[in-house]
This record gives sequence, structure tokens and C-alpha cells, in this order.
Amino acid sequence: MKNFEYYNPVHIVFGKGQMAQLKKLIPAKSKLLLVYGGGSIKENGIYEEVTGHLKNFQVIEFEGVSSNPQYDHLMKGVELARQAQINFILAVGGGSVIDGAKFISAAINHSDDPWNILSKRQKIESVIPFGCVLTLPATGSEMNSFSVISKGADKLGFGGDPRLYPKFSILDPTLTYSLPDRQLANGIVDAYVHVLEQYLTKDINAPIQDRYAEAILKTLREQAPLVMSSPDNYDARANLMWSATQALNGLIGVGVIHDWATHMIGHELTALYGIDHARTLAVVLPSLLRVQKEHKLEKLVQYGIRVLEIDPELDVEDIADKAIVKTEEFFNSLNVPTKLSEYQVKVENIADIVSSLKSHIAANLGEDGNIDDKKVTQILTLSVKS
Amino acid sequence: MKNFEYYNPVHIVFGKGQMAQLKKLIPAKSKLLLVYGGGSIKENGIYEEVTGHLKNFQVIEFEGVSSNPQYDHLMKGVELARQAQINFILAVGGGSVIDGAKFISAAINHSDDPWNILSKRQKIESVIPFGCVLTLPATGSEMNSFSVISKGADKLGFGGDPRLYPKFSILDPTLTYSLPDRQLANGIVDAYVHVLEQYLTKDINAPIQDRYAEAILKTLREQAPLVMSSPDNYDARANLMWSATQALNGLIGVGVIHDWATHMIGHELTALYGIDHARTLAVVLPSLLRVQKEHKLEKLVQYGIRVLEIDPELDVEDIADKAIVKTEEFFNSLNVPTKLSEYQVKVENIADIVSSLKSHIAANLGEDGNIDDKKVTQILTLSVKS
Repeated sequence: MKNFEYYNPVHIVFGKGQMAQLKKLIPAKSKLLLVYGGGSIKENGIYEEVTGHLKNFQVIEFEGVSSNPQYDHLMKGVELARQAQINFILAVGGGSVIDGAKFISAAINHSDDPWNILSKRQKIESVIPFGCVLTLPATGSEMNSFSVISKGADKLGFGGDPRLYPKFSILDPTLTYSLPDRQLANGIVDAYVHVLEQYLTKDINAPIQDRYAEAILKTLREQAPLVMSSPDNYDARANLMWSATQALNGLIGVGVIHDWATHMIGHELTALYGIDHARTLAVVLPSLLRVQKEHKLEKLVQYGIRVLEIDPELDVEDIADKAIVKTEEFFNSLNVPTKLSEYQVKVENIADIVSSLKSHIAANLGEDGNIDDKKVTQILTLSVKS
Repeated sequence: MKNFEYYNPVHIVFGKGQMAQLKKLIPAKSKLLLVYGGGSIKENGIYEEVTGHLKNFQVIEFEGVSSNPQYDHLMKGVELARQAQINFILAVGGGSVIDGAKFISAAINHSDDPWNILSKRQKIESVIPFGCVLTLPATGSEMNSFSVISKGADKLGFGGDPRLYPKFSILDPTLTYSLPDRQLANGIVDAYVHVLEQYLTKDINAPIQDRYAEAILKTLREQAPLVMSSPDNYDARANLMWSATQALNGLIGVGVIHDWATHMIGHELTALYGIDHARTLAVVLPSLLRVQKEHKLEKLVQYGIRVLEIDPELDVEDIADKAIVKTEEFFNSLNVPTKLSEYQVKVENIADIVSSLKSHIAANLGEDGNIDDKKVTQILTLSVKS
């Protein structure tokens, strides 16, 4: 195991009816910025429920945070927050809204252009504390200190600063009952890939982390059909919600080797072609695993045997191949395509994607830094050719 | 899944050489109470290493915290801390030293007799912040807010107050290289039973928690022989240390049903007969599982199949029986007895044990409150008769 530090002070409040705790969780007399998305919370009753619990606070609303939250739009929220001198932020939504709230939190008191926090890795000066009401299980943003923001064709992340942890996150599985299938499926794929990127690297003898990762993968596979077929299956929604949070709250990633190449390549596909985040992962990951198969062989075999229950008597190459196919099948079972050819991306676009990626990363990708331009091209080419 | 809250802000600093971070982790200019045990840290070099990193702080030492830390002794530490007006506590040791430090932390500013925090559940008025350097993987105290203290024949717990979390815990597996076999074995059993008491209850459809529990159990079983046979196997020590912390940091217990009867009965055996804490668990648990077998059947079978790899084709009663036997065999493989007859406890002592237990608990034990005096008697009788 590698040396590590783990510090995650998010206060998780999980279960049905927990929204009623909002008035205790938000510091008394706070002046709030209420951040939310495109208005679905006004249709499904969540807006009414949240604001019902905020009657003792001054509330300024900032709506319209989209998926892949946009810098230009978020800066309007920053202006609003500065003018009103708010001192707490409440994010109500999925990962995009929470990521947006994290950016606003860090941007309000930033003396330079806040985009520099992402593009130039400028240090955050101070933050405005924030809490979350999660409505979409997917990104894990409700229990981590990371955020991804877009500005034109740039989709960049920031975080890792302990001040960027939410003060609390309310996880009420009933809030997910009204989610459309596409968002649910995307959430499952996103969480699944988060786990694989912290797990499918190299065995460095960290069995707790490995088995926790396998626990989440197995649970996602088992709960996914229940979630997709029965919108009001509380237990299935609860287990999905807790799985997605666990997938990216740092715990399974302590002391082990990561490979975030799939996410990094996927961000380019979203920024350039507007493909849903999770769907970019589903088209990149299988091709990446094929290209990196020999490199990841030991862990692919472990994943194949322990999670996918592939016959351990088979040849290791076969097990690894089957593990990749079964991963594709799982995504496909959620109506999430695993080939770039399903989108408007052609072989002739690959050079642009690679060049854009190159402008956003400081070094080669992959757990050993061996995913260079050539390999990214190879991965994308494999995915484009159905 | 049941509703739950999870908040665990302990800053874990894990790995070899991490002691060097002490000077950053302790607030500048702190006046420290350094709490430790019976002097083994002076023999194995840990004392020297710790104090070497404390040169910038005023340090008052309080030594001699024993296993089953004693109220009378700890109150001397409280007096010392009050006189010197210390403002930070550093615990260097295992669970007993850390539990002792938690008590001192809560007792220093308590206006009434601090024992009332345990015996009368008096609210803690304020705490002095504290950090830990863990030297013995076992209790999980380094990442939870609980503590168990003894006064004569009373062994009582307190905690659950978020102010009782350590500010940080340094977990350096190399600090465990010099541990005697008996302490290592006890630690493994303690951690294993912590997991079982949060897992072997009822299936309420919480697969993440179940699989995390199974992850820790499997890892403890797999690492135990390596730990016992090779004192300087870094990975084995690291995996044991992280397993023991995970076993009782609250995570596997969120949203599920617990049964702490084994611990509650075990505390009486330690208080009355001085049996090592872990060894009391090893003599109580198998008998408790036999008495409660029908009640816990579903989970015993799951444990048997998933953790112990018992043939799933067998009859469920057989699987459960075998699971209990295999649990005993695991403890015995560590030279930890599983029968009370191995100690100086006789059938005629059982009434006293039951009566003492009754004076310390408000209700019957067990996940359904169905372990009454009669069942405790039955459990102890089964364990006394070899």
C-alpha cells in the first residue's frame, strides 16, 4: 500500500424525510444562495419542499446551472452572491449543480479571475461554506472536494482543497423517483467507471480497497436493473445512491494507483461534441481497456473473476477479453452505447480531439504515464470503428 | 436501509515515516499532554521518535495508561492537565491509551465528577482537542468517537459526540513490528468481532455495508497468518492496520442493524475476571451465535458462503453450524481460546456475571432485544462447558 492521507468531513444525512433537517444543518441566520438547475425541481415538488424548510433564512436564488456547468453562467451567480453578501450556499441538484456551487463558493472572494483557479491552478483564497441536497446519484460530488467546470471548449477540474468539501449532504433516495431513465443510466455508468479508474490499474496489495471497489461494482450491477425497472423501489434507489457516493468519496482510492485517462479523454468529447459525460466514459473505457489490456491484465482478471464471475479456469487473456465485453454489455443493458460511432464523431475528428486533450494535460495519461498521443488516437480509433 | 447520519472528520495519515508530520498536525504553540502506556514505547524507540518531533511544543507527560484504562489513574492525568493548562492531547498507543485520552479530553473541563459522563450519561461540557499515534491495530478508537473506561467492577462506554473524534491519527504500520503475538492476535480478534457485530444480524437490503463488512473479514482472515508469521511484513501489517480502523469507524454500520451483546457481556468478564478484552469476545461470540442461530440464520448463511467459502449446496442449518465452527477455528489458530472453561470462570460464577451485566444495561441485548438474563446465562453456560 502507498502512503496516504484521508480526510473527509462531509456530514451525510441519508434517508427519506431527511430534508426536514435542513433548518438545523444550515447555520442560523444564514443569508443563502440557493443554487439549482434547469427547473425540473419545480416540476417534481423538490423546490417546494426545500424552500418550505428555508423560511427562517434570507434566500437569493440562482437557477439554470446546466450539465457541464458553464463558467459564464456561474459567474452570474458569483455576482449575485457578491452583491447580496451571502454567507452560505445550498446546492439542490446532481453533480453539475454541486460542482457549480463549489466553483461559486471558491470564486466569490477570489481577487483575480476565478477561471484561473482552474486554468492556472491558482490557490483558492477563501470559500463560502455550502451544503447539498442531492437529487441524482452519479458523480460523488456530494462527498468530495472536486468540481469540473466548462468554458467554451475547455472542460477543466479543480479541487482537492479540504475547504471544498460540502458541510453536509442530504441524500434522500425518494428524490430520485422522478428521474428520467437516461439520467439514471448515466449516473450508474459514471459511478461504475469512477470505481474502475481507481481499481483497474495494478495490484499493489491493498485488499481492503480492492474489495471495497468490488463491493460497489457488484452492487451497481445488481441494483441497476431494479432501479431501471421500478421507479419507486426505495431500497434499490437507496443502494444506488450510497454506491455512487462511495464510488468517489476518496475511500476506495486511498493508497492505490489510479488511472483517470478515461475521464480526461471523455471530458474532451463532451467539450467538443456535447456528448453526455457518462456516455463519453462508456465509449472510451472499453477501447482503453483493449489498448491497455496487457498492462492491466492482472487486475482485469481479478475483476473478471471476482465481480463478473467469469470462469477462473479460463486462460487469463480470455478472462480479460470477456471482462471487457461484459463491461460493454452492462453499459448497453442501460441503453448506453459503447462505441463512438454511435455519435457524430468520425475518424477525421480524432486529431482535433487529441490536440485539444494535449492542451489540457501536463503529462501523458495512464497509471504509468504510458498513454501518449498515439495511444489516445488508437483508443479513439478503436471506438469510432464499430 | 435505515436512515442514517455519517460524519467522521478524522484526518488519517497513513504509512511509514508519517510521524514526521506531527509538527504540522499539532496546532502551533500547543501546550501538550503526551499520554502513553506502560513504557513499551520507551523500549521500542517510538517514545524517542515521537518526542523528537515535539521539540517545538511544551510537553507534559502522563504515562501508565493500562489496558482497560482505569478512571482513578486517568483522573491523575486530568489533574496534571488542569494544573498545566494544556490545550492539546497527544495519545501514543493502542485503543486503551486513545480511550484514556478521550476521557481526559472530556473530563478536564467537566464541572461535576467526570465519571458521571459514563455512569449517568452526563453531557460533555467541552473537550480539549487531541490526536493519536496508533501503535496497535485493534479497537478502531483512532477513527471513532467512542471510549471505554473502567472503575472497579464497572466497565462502561461513552461517546458518539462528534467532539470526541481525534483531530488526526497517524497510522504507521512499522510501529507495530515489535508487538507481542498476544497483542496482535487480540487485535485481530477484536476487529473481526467488531465487524460481525454490525453484520451478523438481519438482512435489511444494504449490500454495500454487507460487502464492505465481508471485505474486512476476508482481509483479516487472509492477512492474519502473514502478520503472525512475519513481524516485518509491511504490507500485511498495513492491511491489518487499515482493516482494524475500517472495522469500527462507523462506515460498515451505517443504516444497518447492530448487535453489541458480545461486547456487553465481554466487558463484564474483563471487569470481573481481568480477561483480555478480545479474549472475552472470543469466548462469548461462538456461544452467542449458537444460542441465537435461528435468529441470525440468514446472515450466518451469507457469512458462511461469502466469507468462509462453505459449500452453498449444503443445508442452511449445516452452513450456519459450520460458519460458527470456522469462526472458532480462526480464533484458535491465533491461540485465542473460544471457551470460558479455559479461564478461571465456573458455572457457579454465572449468576454474578448476569447480575453485574444487568446493573449496567437499560434493556435486553441483541438486535431485537431478545437476549434476556436467561439467554445470557445460556450463552455463558455453553461457553463454560468445554
